[in-house]
Amino acid sequence: MKPELRIGLIGTGYMGKAHCIAFQTASAVFPLSGTIVCEMVADINAELAAQKATEFGFKRSTGDWRELVNDPNIDLVDICAPNYLHREMALAAIAAGKHVYSEKPLALNASDALEMTEAAERAGVKTLVGFNYTKNPTIQLAKQIIERGEIGEVVHFRGTFNEDYLADSQTPFSWRLKREFSGAGTLGDMGSHIINIAQHLVAPIEQLCADLQTVHKQRPIADTDGETGRVENDDQVHMMVRFNNGAIGTLESSRIAWGRKNGLWFEINGTRGTLIFDQQRLSELQLYTATDASNRQGFRTILTGPEHPDYQHFCVSAGHGIGYNDMKAVEVRDLVEGIFNQTPIWPDFRAAYEVNKVMDAVELSHRQGSWITL
Amino acid sequence: MKPELRIGLIGTGYMGKAHCIAFQTASAVFPLSGTIVCEMVADINAELAAQKATEFGFKRSTGDWRELVNDPNIDLVDICAPNYLHREMALAAIAAGKHVYSEKPLALNASDALEMTEAAERAGVKTLVGFNYTKNPTIQLAKQIIERGEIGEVVHFRGTFNEDYLADSQTPFSWRLKREFSGAGTLGDMGSHIINIAQHLVAPIEQLCADLQTVHKQRPIADTDGETGRVENDDQVHMMVRFNNGAIGTLESSRIAWGRKNGLWFEINGTRGTLIFDQQRLSELQLYTATDASNRQGFRTILTGPEHPDYQHFCVSAGHGIGYNDMKAVEVRDLVEGIFNQTPIWPDFRAAYEVNKVMDAVELSHRQGSWITL
Amino acid sequence: MKPELRIGLIGTGYMGKAHCIAFQTASAVFPLSGTIVCEMVADINAELAAQKATEFGFKRSTGDWRELVNDPNIDLVDICAPNYLHREMALAAIAAGKHVYSEKPLALNASDALEMTEAAERAGVKTLVGFNYTKNPTIQLAKQIIERGEIGEVVHFRGTFNEDYLADSQTPFSWRLKREFSGAGTLGDMGSHIINIAQHLVAPIEQLCADLQTVHKQRPIADTDGETGRVENDDQVHMMVRFNNGAIGTLESSRIAWGRKNGLWFEINGTRGTLIFDQQRLSELQLYTATDASNRQGFRTILTGPEHPDYQHFCVSAGHGIGYNDMKAVEVRDLVEGIFNQTPIWPDFRAAYEVNKVMDAVELSHRQGSWITL
Amino acid sequence: MKPELRIGLIGTGYMGKAHCIAFQTASAVFPLSGTIVCEMVADINAELAAQKATEFGFKRSTGDWRELVNDPNIDLVDICAPNYLHREMALAAIAAGKHVYSEKPLALNASDALEMTEAAERAGVKTLVGFNYTKNPTIQLAKQIIERGEIGEVVHFRGTFNEDYLADSQTPFSWRLKREFSGAGTLGDMGSHIINIAQHLVAPIEQLCADLQTVHKQRPIADTDGETGRVENDDQVHMMVRFNNGAIGTLESSRIAWGRKNGLWFEINGTRGTLIFDQQRLSELQLYTATDASNRQGFRTILTGPEHPDYQHFCVSAGHGIGYNDMKAVEVRDLVEGIFNQTPIWPDFRAAYEVNKVMDAVELSHRQGSWITL
Repeated sequence: MKPELRIGLIGTGYMGKAHCIAFQTASAVFPLSGTIVCEMVADINAELAAQKATEFGFKRSTGDWRELVNDPNIDLVDICAPNYLHREMALAAIAAGKHVYSEKPLALNASDALEMTEAAERAGVKTLVGFNYTKNPTIQLAKQIIERGEIGEVVHFRGTFNEDYLADSQTPFSWRLKREFSGAGTLGDMGSHIINIAQHLVAPIEQLCADLQTVHKQRPIADTDGETGRVENDDQVHMMVRFNNGAIGTLESSRIAWGRKNGLWFEINGTRGTLIFDQQRLSELQLYTATDASNRQGFRTILTGPEHPDYQHFCVSAGHGIGYNDMKAVEVRDLVEGIFNQTPIWPDFRAAYEVNKVMDAVELSHRQGSWITL
Repeated sequence: MKPELRIGLIGTGYMGKAHCIAFQTASAVFPLSGTIVCEMVADINAELAAQKATEFGFKRSTGDWRELVNDPNIDLVDICAPNYLHREMALAAIAAGKHVYSEKPLALNASDALEMTEAAERAGVKTLVGFNYTKNPTIQLAKQIIERGEIGEVVHFRGTFNEDYLADSQTPFSWRLKREFSGAGTLGDMGSHIINIAQHLVAPIEQLCADLQTVHKQRPIADTDGETGRVENDDQVHMMVRFNNGAIGTLESSRIAWGRKNGLWFEINGTRGTLIFDQQRLSELQLYTATDASNRQGFRTILTGPEHPDYQHFCVSAGHGIGYNDMKAVEVRDLVEGIFNQTPIWPDFRAAYEVNKVMDAVELSHRQGSWITL
Repeated sequence: MKPELRIGLIGTGYMGKAHCIAFQTASAVFPLSGTIVCEMVADINAELAAQKATEFGFKRSTGDWRELVNDPNIDLVDICAPNYLHREMALAAIAAGKHVYSEKPLALNASDALEMTEAAERAGVKTLVGFNYTKNPTIQLAKQIIERGEIGEVVHFRGTFNEDYLADSQTPFSWRLKREFSGAGTLGDMGSHIINIAQHLVAPIEQLCADLQTVHKQRPIADTDGETGRVENDDQVHMMVRFNNGAIGTLESSRIAWGRKNGLWFEINGTRGTLIFDQQRLSELQLYTATDASNRQGFRTILTGPEHPDYQHFCVSAGHGIGYNDMKAVEVRDLVEGIFNQTPIWPDFRAAYEVNKVMDAVELSHRQGSWITL
Repeated sequence: MKPELRIGLIGTGYMGKAHCIAFQTASAVFPLSGTIVCEMVADINAELAAQKATEFGFKRSTGDWRELVNDPNIDLVDICAPNYLHREMALAAIAAGKHVYSEKPLALNASDALEMTEAAERAGVKTLVGFNYTKNPTIQLAKQIIERGEIGEVVHFRGTFNEDYLADSQTPFSWRLKREFSGAGTLGDMGSHIINIAQHLVAPIEQLCADLQTVHKQRPIADTDGETGRVENDDQVHMMVRFNNGAIGTLESSRIAWGRKNGLWFEINGTRGTLIFDQQRLSELQLYTATDASNRQGFRTILTGPEHPDYQHFCVSAGHGIGYNDMKAVEVRDLVEGIFNQTPIWPDFRAAYEVNKVMDAVELSHRQGSWITL
């Protein structure tokens, strides 16, 4: 008989639904070592919780997330609540001996993230933070190519994660723009992903120097007669980094870059080749290798397929394309297999803490106008 | 209490699994009017059927598809068996009063397809044939743009559906290469999709002239000492068509086009603009409109998002990308909503029969070396 | 002392200027075996001829092309006049013992083209017809790749040459739309290029079946009060072809394809790989080769550079890009070197006659509604 | 009678030839206000000078550049010699009252550049420095779009100029790698272009913080038995900048980025839209504008054509493509028209001095590890 993993989901918004789709898809796509059971949903609005439980196919619901966290029939607490609640919820879940699946960024700052990490490690529970993009078979392939030395030693990484969801200066004010609820701005929302990817594909970041800016400093408050709210975090951020293996790079993020819808993009130069990836064409990896005959060299567009990591579970034919939600299903697979088999999971809280450390250093660098050594 | 739709799945291969993923995803993504129940799996190998039932999350299994078809607790028969079995299975399911979901092409020839269509219509059961590509939000957007006249009157359609899964002359012989089991070659496998799309986006095809060719005439039989099998159907096909609204076009398909992994591509010229679509970049639609200022005209790449058909169910942010399996989930939504609400479903058997008619005309045109009027 | 080649240019419009730029550029770029001397310009308007002679850097001018053709100080007659005049001018030039450089299509029909070809061959003069696109280093590279067998045996060619210069139904009537002055429509203007390229890269065309259409049948006559002129030639044309080496293909051309500005595009499938070219990105060749490791295969974008044919004369660095006029300079180099060194020139009148033969067959096929064997 | 401008060219290498092609092309393409006369060539090797004079179509030659500079029949001194000679040659030419056309970077450092600038301004001679990329009609179009406010206020500029000509660690040592001859490395060679473009399209750079690195520190010396030379300047450089209009940005350059052949690329985000340009597709400009209907927004690819700046002189049809050498021809047009008409020329020595100032600040920032205010 297969073991069960009973999920308690906190938060019923966009990410809550995305996690539910991923639980279903992962179960249908992968030969999992156990069964995912959608057990309970919590939302501060009990009625909404009940409605979403039905909609998402969960058995029970509650208006009190602490009830969920302490329920004996919950094995994993899945935190899809706003950033400022991650710490409290995760610590409570860890205290109750639950595994924790949290959305990113893990915490509002590195010291909180460290506290959460150490708590989880002491308790021996499993954790995973939703830096989903590295789960894409295409980025897994990039990792493989780098590790096998196919582009030589990495010498430069340039990465961006730009979107335009706040490019319109008239987009209304929201809690995401206040530090106490959201922490950093685009740095935390999208910048955290590109930091995570850089660390994953290249090496730990050792030093950085950063700049950031709030372009639209006031935004209209919805349903008011012209009132505006002050934006407290960054619209655009960029940094120069030095990795601990000697490579250097630039990382950027913007939430006001018109036209970029999921502008996660990177180029990695090595001593023998180059890789380029664009999340908006998430099934394509550009590989240039100096190993090709000199008059036949060019960037080749590899369409991910069954010969590449994890793809064959979704489809037997190359180039048919996996989607955004499929990356989340791979993430869920990694999470539940780690729990079922008691094997390491990546990126866990500690890996996410490393991202928070970089984020703190970015803000410090900007305030001080200087390089920061991590 | 929501109504239930109990699925009986015949066939446990690639397409069987794809359908199961789609059942799960559709349930998680869409607010369906009823519940999809994965009831029974049939496979000629009873043991495999049992194993796949567990794997796919179905309740029961059988080694006899007729048992499934006649089971009183099955509402919908889902046919994922080889082409040559579609007719017999569908007719039996219709006779038993079941709704039918069939993979494409519907039949080995138009007369079989017509028989199946008329049987379904007489019985009043619902049908859907798996021409999944038109379910892509991006192609739905193309349809909307055309219908609203944004590119004017359509004057030309050029479409291809090319892959390379048989490009290697040493890929072994299989039943797909024999007429009695598979019917046409690439014409049926991929050509049927591009025919369906052309009819959907432009108009019925009235006349055509076609050419086709088997390039690799013998293929090695696996696990033999150099024996080969004779390939009985087409490796590549193309046709000139005249639509009944006066537009003309070309349609092509190849299974030996190196490098094309899901090379479903089309360009539609209208009197006021052009659309281009490439399934390998399935979330992008290229739109050129003569309405833009003359010195600012250019193909614009629209990334499908929540403002376009069906996308918002998958993700709230544009450009994050849907995948191949997601199109199948839209197809399942169309199917089950049509059944739950007793509304028309497209493409039903009759629409699929129209594709089979074109396929027959293509082969006749090639044999006669002449234009054929449908 | 280097020999001289004295040019007599007939026609001072767009193509006349393009030729003059090419004479200058070829002289600056290539180490030619002799000197190009811009001797005389003819235009029916003597005043315009004089003005253009100054502007183009020619020594003399005339209002009578026959005077130019018979001038003893002219070695090469360069015909940039409308299509219907090519025959008369070329025959006169050949009769006067001049070499002839003619724009394409060579003639209004194949019989005229044959007459001109035979006259030139009998007279022993050199000829070249301006099918300039094959002079692009990128297409020369494609030719080299095919000849070396890098994509195996060619099995399919699909090519288009689409533009939108007549896509607007209100673009005024002109002499180009009348058969007596222009002959075929888009078939002659752009279709002739793609026919030439297909013959060059694949093999002679043996059989074809074609369709063509005039979409905008009347166009306004400029400076009239609403008068319209009847369009006598094709707006869009496509054909299925069978090459004499067994490959098949489709060729298309349109002058009403919105968004296509120089939409010369082809894909060539071979038994071991594929080539794709798009003139709008004229320095890029897409190569897919089955020789790459199966999990590293992809279309590679080769940027033409000094290791590829003729590029190094323009620039020492790859990917810096050659332009439209540069292809014409290569053409001029081929022309004048053939004359200076008395070596074969391609494409000469005979090669252009082969294009005219296909064009005639296209029109016949359309009239008869049948396949034509050439 | 048209005035003449008599050119004295110093340097017969790659850039010398490029200039000669540009003189010819500009004369053939543009209706210039005067005549360019190719008068004299200087090279330290008198024999080579003579040979190149013939090859390039110049009347005279000399082995002594000072003779050329002081020749009374020279109006313009064109400096295509190595960087470290620019200062001496330009000052001598200015002293002789000649106009000066110099390749970039103007000088080895800002103080030299300023000396040259002030000398030229005092003497009242015209100058132009070969930052040719802004002469591309496509970048001219970008400038026009920004100036007209079509993308609102610029908030971010990210630009790169990466190539791979030194990516191979075994590419031999050369004088370009020594500071005394070349000054900065990729910063001067390609970085100077992207700095110039950023200043041109956005605003003056006010503050910057930069990092740079020599990755391949020793390179083999050709024709020796394993000797190596020490590389004294940067292989890769990047910087964060703040423009004086409040926009921020990142600029990068690498000469070791495998696969980049002419990787001049930029993206400019404004408050109402975005522009993207890639020199490897030099006739395409990507424009995203928030003015389009929200469900029809997308990056549109504008192919430069006759409606855009300067294009119509090269070709009457859009999208046919201009090449690298054509940009140089526009540069020559700007140069000679400024001289013939006594109008301002851009970029003159002063504009190039502004680039040198940024380059100096980059090196200082790197040495100090701090932000620099210009």
